[in-house]
Amino acid sequence: MKNYSKYPKYYVAVDCVIFGYDIRKKLLKLLLVKRNIDPGKGSWSLAGGFVKEKESLDDAAARILRKLTGISTVLLIQSRTYGDTDRDPGARVISTSYYALTGTSEINHELVKDNGAHWRSVEDLPKLVFDHSKMVNQALHDLQNLLKTKPVGFELLPEKFTLVQLQELYEAILQVKVDKRNFRKKILSMDILEKLEEKEKQTSKKGAWYYTFKKERYDKLSMNGFSFNLDVS
Amino acid sequence: MKNYSKYPKYYVAVDCVIFGYDIRKKLLKLLLVKRNIDPGKGSWSLAGGFVKEKESLDDAAARILRKLTGISTVLLIQSRTYGDTDRDPGARVISTSYYALTGTSEINHELVKDNGAHWRSVEDLPKLVFDHSKMVNQALHDLQNLLKTKPVGFELLPEKFTLVQLQELYEAILQVKVDKRNFRKKILSMDILEKLEEKEKQTSKKGAWYYTFKKERYDKLSMNGFSFNLDVS
Repeated sequence: MKNYSKYPKYYVAVDCVIFGYDIRKKLLKLLLVKRNIDPGKGSWSLAGGFVKEKESLDDAAARILRKLTGISTVLLIQSRTYGDTDRDPGARVISTSYYALTGTSEINHELVKDNGAHWRSVEDLPKLVFDHSKMVNQALHDLQNLLKTKPVGFELLPEKFTLVQLQELYEAILQVKVDKRNFRKKILSMDILEKLEEKEKQTSKKGAWYYTFKKERYDKLSMNGFSFNLDVS
Repeated sequence: MKNYSKYPKYYVAVDCVIFGYDIRKKLLKLLLVKRNIDPGKGSWSLAGGFVKEKESLDDAAARILRKLTGISTVLLIQSRTYGDTDRDPGARVISTSYYALTGTSEINHELVKDNGAHWRSVEDLPKLVFDHSKMVNQALHDLQNLLKTKPVGFELLPEKFTLVQLQELYEAILQVKVDKRNFRKKILSMDILEKLEEKEKQTSKKGAWYYTFKKERYDKLSMNGFSFNLDVS
């Protein structure tokens, strides 16, 4: 287009901060890859790539996530765009980061392994290439805020979970200690969980009731002005 | 760089959602311009422009704001990046939107006029070019969230303001009716306002005390773990 032709063009990329929750170890994890091109070849990196001509930024992020993990139905949220002139020593690249919440059970672990990707605990990350550590910190901050105001924690848990498991997830991600009674009261008072007729018995003799998230109920409440709020920090 | 050269490049732009608050009319306003290039020449538009080779996205947004209004010391926050393939019929342009909170008193009104810009009430916006309406809606949503969790409302008010004026600002932006006693109790309990020895007497005979925001006090509280919270909706 003639009108724009005097302006510069840049490479445009997306990078994915792929969160997964390890329910046994009670740890928030991140899926990392080894970068396969220079500059920085061999460094730990977020999964990313350049945006193709016929795809939106959202589509590019979904493609990268699907290629790495086999997952296509997942919460994938735009976080922030990084555009410092020197962020990539190879060339000027503008990169938009997305974060994904994955239940580890949905992931194709063979595919992940074949792609050379590794899960690493968020609390113990290696040095990442370029400004990827900043992207992780920002995405974690976004996730913490989201967890307080939207029922997204369930995306990281199996379909049925105990209240203790839900609390542990909040504690792991918000990095706080949560009062058990208060937490139960708050979550149950919202009436968006269904108690199942089944107990989890591996962690205690007495067992703990399984619950499941009532998505339809929540959607209906939301339409009528209800706001999810679980600010336990 | 050889390694990247097989990938496509795109135009990269920023667009600024410039909010101002009209304290007399109690309206949140937006600064709009008429687009001066095709496609869409003459349409109402956000103030925007292409990102130069030696500036970051943040710098580009600051340049555009400064050129239009003369303001350089203002809260300017990245909102979201728009990358649909067909968002600009002229060419593929990736655009990052920023929103700015301006006290109307700091603005160089002559400059604004010379640049052909106009303030329009957010509740009564004209049709905007491309996806700029989406940008406005997203930025307004961001601002509403920010107003509940950070003391940014003061950026939109004069240095001294009454509690009624502060409440009116919250009502205008959050688009809710706020209980006066509750609002006063909440804001004063945070101990981040200083009561001045001076009254605003234009709106009532009795007058209302002026207050000012104690930024240093707030910064100190924040460092010690205090969270601003004024969720009045």
